[in-house]
Amino acid sequence: MKETEFLQELKEINLLQQALGILDWDTQTGMPEKASEYRSAVDSYLYSLYFAKKVGPKIEEALAYFGEHPEELSEVGQAAYRKVKEDFELEHNVPQELMTKYSAAISSAHGQWQKSRETKQFADFESALTQNVELTKELIPYWQKDEKTPYDVLLNQYEPGMTVEILDKVFAQLKDGIMSIREEISEKGIEPETSFLSRKMTKEQQKRFVVGVIEQLGYDFSRGRLDDTIHPFMTGINPNDARITTRWNEHDFQMAVFGVIHEAGHGMYEQDIDDKYAYTPVYQGASMGIHESQSLFNEIIVGSNRSFWEKQYPFFQECAEGAFADIAFADFYRSLKRTRASLIRIEADSLTYPLHIIIRYEIEKMIFNENLAIAELPEVWNQKYEEYLGVRPTNDLEGILQDVHWSGASFGYFPSYALGYMYAAQLLHALEKELSIDEVLASDDYSPIKKWMEKHIHQYGASRKPNQLIQDATNEPLNPNYLIEYMRNLYFDVYQVN
Amino acid sequence: MKETEFLQELKEINLLQQALGILDWDTQTGMPEKASEYRSAVDSYLYSLYFAKKVGPKIEEALAYFGEHPEELSEVGQAAYRKVKEDFELEHNVPQELMTKYSAAISSAHGQWQKSRETKQFADFESALTQNVELTKELIPYWQKDEKTPYDVLLNQYEPGMTVEILDKVFAQLKDGIMSIREEISEKGIEPETSFLSRKMTKEQQKRFVVGVIEQLGYDFSRGRLDDTIHPFMTGINPNDARITTRWNEHDFQMAVFGVIHEAGHGMYEQDIDDKYAYTPVYQGASMGIHESQSLFNEIIVGSNRSFWEKQYPFFQECAEGAFADIAFADFYRSLKRTRASLIRIEADSLTYPLHIIIRYEIEKMIFNENLAIAELPEVWNQKYEEYLGVRPTNDLEGILQDVHWSGASFGYFPSYALGYMYAAQLLHALEKELSIDEVLASDDYSPIKKWMEKHIHQYGASRKPNQLIQDATNEPLNPNYLIEYMRNLYFDVYQVN
Repeated sequence: MKETEFLQELKEINLLQQALGILDWDTQTGMPEKASEYRSAVDSYLYSLYFAKKVGPKIEEALAYFGEHPEELSEVGQAAYRKVKEDFELEHNVPQELMTKYSAAISSAHGQWQKSRETKQFADFESALTQNVELTKELIPYWQKDEKTPYDVLLNQYEPGMTVEILDKVFAQLKDGIMSIREEISEKGIEPETSFLSRKMTKEQQKRFVVGVIEQLGYDFSRGRLDDTIHPFMTGINPNDARITTRWNEHDFQMAVFGVIHEAGHGMYEQDIDDKYAYTPVYQGASMGIHESQSLFNEIIVGSNRSFWEKQYPFFQECAEGAFADIAFADFYRSLKRTRASLIRIEADSLTYPLHIIIRYEIEKMIFNENLAIAELPEVWNQKYEEYLGVRPTNDLEGILQDVHWSGASFGYFPSYALGYMYAAQLLHALEKELSIDEVLASDDYSPIKKWMEKHIHQYGASRKPNQLIQDATNEPLNPNYLIEYMRNLYFDVYQVN
Repeated sequence: MKETEFLQELKEINLLQQALGILDWDTQTGMPEKASEYRSAVDSYLYSLYFAKKVGPKIEEALAYFGEHPEELSEVGQAAYRKVKEDFELEHNVPQELMTKYSAAISSAHGQWQKSRETKQFADFESALTQNVELTKELIPYWQKDEKTPYDVLLNQYEPGMTVEILDKVFAQLKDGIMSIREEISEKGIEPETSFLSRKMTKEQQKRFVVGVIEQLGYDFSRGRLDDTIHPFMTGINPNDARITTRWNEHDFQMAVFGVIHEAGHGMYEQDIDDKYAYTPVYQGASMGIHESQSLFNEIIVGSNRSFWEKQYPFFQECAEGAFADIAFADFYRSLKRTRASLIRIEADSLTYPLHIIIRYEIEKMIFNENLAIAELPEVWNQKYEEYLGVRPTNDLEGILQDVHWSGASFGYFPSYALGYMYAAQLLHALEKELSIDEVLASDDYSPIKKWMEKHIHQYGASRKPNQLIQDATNEPLNPNYLIEYMRNLYFDVYQVN
């Protein structure tokens, strides 16, 4: 087999994936509401073509051949080979019948989850979730390579190389760090005034501002676009098409402003991956965690930076057309960083957010490594919220039913969010050895930040593993202390804790 | 072979077509500008899958089997069989090599056409057009069944059953009719005042109005959507997804208002086709001409109706927020129907429009049936414009380079526009035997019109031929006198001729 033949097969797989990507984007942005049944039929069919090729004889042949003749592959071919091999082994070992049951379970669980949200009763979701968990447990042995525990197998799917052993340690440190910051703030901090944050800004006003901001940050609209959706996301179709989405609230500009900056971080990553990986599975982020590090770097590291806001506030005020005219910059800035324990993860502030993740991590670990009974989940959930955040859900919708992930059997996904945040802070620390982020964000040219990320993270796509990227970019493995330190400085500043 | 197997193959073909439809819609509505090369790769690949199935062994087998056993097919199966057979024969006879040359020629001609528009020189398009014509001439014998002349073969592809013999007669009548109306108007008519038509209406104001109008006319937004584009079109993806597009001009509300009403006519047709034909090639319009009859019925028959505007004018004024407050209804209405000879087809008014089509018909016929030299086209074009419309292009962009069709080798397409217009007037005449369009359009309920069209035209999709649909709906074959009569009444009224 020739390398060109292997790459041609990968290209065809990728072309189907691009089509599926556009269809999915369309489904989520503006497909006519009654078209969903027809759309499902299109999706299933294209997916079946895609999947058949992905685990098909040509790929099998290529893996066998180039396993023997690695020297016949170019650098791109080698990177693609590694990625394809991982995916193939993950998917090819699983019996078809089990996979079919798994897909059916997920699709029915999603419906049950949505229904249970209406009744706010976990009981209405319990049997579906139980099935998702049980089928996942059946699948784990097929997926397992050398991971030590069942939950490690799941972690590995989203964050290659990540383990319970590492996360237990890192999350314990992170939890302690956050708890202690929260304690000091609650003792000595001065709460920012935030009432003006709900002042009306129209969608057009917000859009003008945030589009201006992300263009300055480096999101390229000639290779992307911004649309409205219900659950915001970024989708990378190809090197010249990385689309972002958002939702808008006229009385909460933060939702779209920080949401769009977040998605633009994902988009900039995809736009910066080296073109040479186009049409191969290397043209994607290294992992969920690394992807999230880029969106959170934009949203939190940049979006919480005083210099950034000092520079942008006049433009913000211009876009708001007077709505914030009486708010001094210092007050505006502080208002953005108020922290308060809350029940809903996606509404959490940047200090308490990791606690929401740690709770989910601990519960998932209990489910898969300690066989926690599904019926007990709501109680465990509620207790942990009370313990870590001091708040307790009054119903399951505010608690265990809030996230979509488990209805899709995406177990092991949640830690990526906190990993991304820790990576972002660690990358900031490394970047600051070369340039001052405050100075760059105070200037008219933000490009040095993006260039640094492109050089150390973006360009590689999935050709390197997350731990290697972090090690190379920062000269050390994942270290939660940078995030703790970062949060301490930021919140002590805002809360005026000396 | 079982019918279900045949229908399953058609479904898979249709699913690929739906995906291609969405991709095309996306390409034309908002795909990032730099993504086009990647998109072409996706399109080509999916198209190759689609085409391979369409002329593939399974279809061939089904045609052979059900040719022998027609009684084993349901009504839907039979309608699908007929359509598939026609398409298959058209495409299967052509040598692959010739088809490849043809596709390549078209794609390069499109680029050359675009370049020639910049230089405004037909000479820059001549060689590409020559190639398109020559390859089409090579293809005609493969496409030919029992058509009498080469150009009949081309006509048949867009309007099954249409012939040069019919069109020569019908277009001669139509031309004479229009010329005589134009003469009387120019002698005795009073030209409407139109200066206020360029008053500013924002996109939002226009959109509010036209969305309101097409909803009343029966376009179903839960099974469609309206987007911005450069060259407006409707695309029917499936029974629950018929999308329309438009462009906007703040100083020419007519462009979007009549454009959207036009596209909504196409969309309503697609939305009304009987669901039982879903996933088969019967789920589409009967022909280009019938499709155009529906869009033109909306745009011209409804959109030129005095009762319609009398009813809508208060809403229009409300949407315009005062911009037309000083314009009396009678003046407003008359302004919409000014007629004036012009050079550009897509800007022509509804009286002179058919002359633009007749010119193109005559030229196409000369090219294919009389071997007119391509180099002579600009001069022939300009002479005909002078003769029929009394205007002469000052450069080729205003003349022969204005339309995209020939760059795509879509010869034989133009007559559909005039056929659609004649069908629309003939359908109006038949419809008026059952209900008064003036009364319906003066009322709050426009549904009787759409119901009539659904009953006589829409529901059948492509299960009946255009001539049969027209015969059944109007009790006679195509008759241009209804359009001539309609135009005479309308324009004599507006121009206050006796």
